Amino acid sequence: MQRRCLDDSSCPVARSLDSIGDWWTLLIVRDAMLGIRRFSDFQRSLGLARNVLSARLKKMVVDGVMTMAPAGDGTSYQEYQLTEKGEALLPVLVAMRQWGKRFLFAPGEPRQELIDRRSGKALETIRVRGVDGRERGIADLGLVTASSS
Amino acid sequence: MQRRCLDDSSCPVARSLDSIGDWWTLLIVRDAMLGIRRFSDFQRSLGLARNVLSARLKKMVVDGVMTMAPAGDGTSYQEYQLTEKGEALLPVLVAMRQWGKRFLFAPGEPRQELIDRRSGKALETIRVRGVDGRERGIADLGLVTASSS
Repeated sequence: MQRRCLDDSSCPVARSLDSIGDWWTLLIVRDAMLGIRRFSDFQRSLGLARNVLSARLKKMVVDGVMTMAPAGDGTSYQEYQLTEKGEALLPVLVAMRQWGKRFLFAPGEPRQELIDRRSGKALETIRVRGVDGRERGIADLGLVTASSS
Repeated sequence: MQRRCLDDSSCPVARSLDSIGDWWTLLIVRDAMLGIRRFSDFQRSLGLARNVLSARLKKMVVDGVMTMAPAGDGTSYQEYQLTEKGEALLPVLVAMRQWGKRFLFAPGEPRQELIDRRSGKALETIRVRGVDGRERGIADLGLVTASSS
């Protein structure tokens, strides 16, 4: 299927999906957040063909989600690191993780759990809130056209 | 590219992407949250071919993200509605929207903004927090294997 380009859409969700909506991109971001830096380690973690992984990483560098730099250990390896823009995807991944945990696992089924190192506990469940800090649901929301500041 | 099936992965992010990682699915969820119910209205909003939209909606019903029921107005139309599982994607969409707003728009560029109807203001920025309510960054997080409760 030809993917329609939505990078000129006025909807930030559509633009985001245009940039990171490829199925592998968020898994690469997930792995990078867990400390993976090298091509071969991404490949091992994701089980992805070299050419596909290479194309995805290249696009992520072009999009400014990752940077590529020589490894600091004097070898000829390149290392991939998340930029500020890439690291800012953390709330998206945590929200997705919490949704998956709630709806896609059977009771007792083993799953990977993201914890807060300090407390050893799971994170707070992400909720949508107004500026007063109170939770908002779908019925509370509306859409307006604004200008970016 | 053959998509690798990750619905048996122990990582909730991978399972979530297996279910909702198709690029169109989250745009359909977005439209449904904004009140769209009918096939022809989804089609108009998304500019998507009938067969593609039909396949996506069918998968979303199978996955339990949407339900399909006869329209309440006595016509032969079918209406699609988000289930609890589908509505629970709100934090994922809002986090994605806020990321897109921050990184993918030039200053002054018009964009759609989700507001809280009550206050007319934008929503609170979604952050990852520990159970103590304080923000956590990538370096604060760790991964463990747990059992679903």
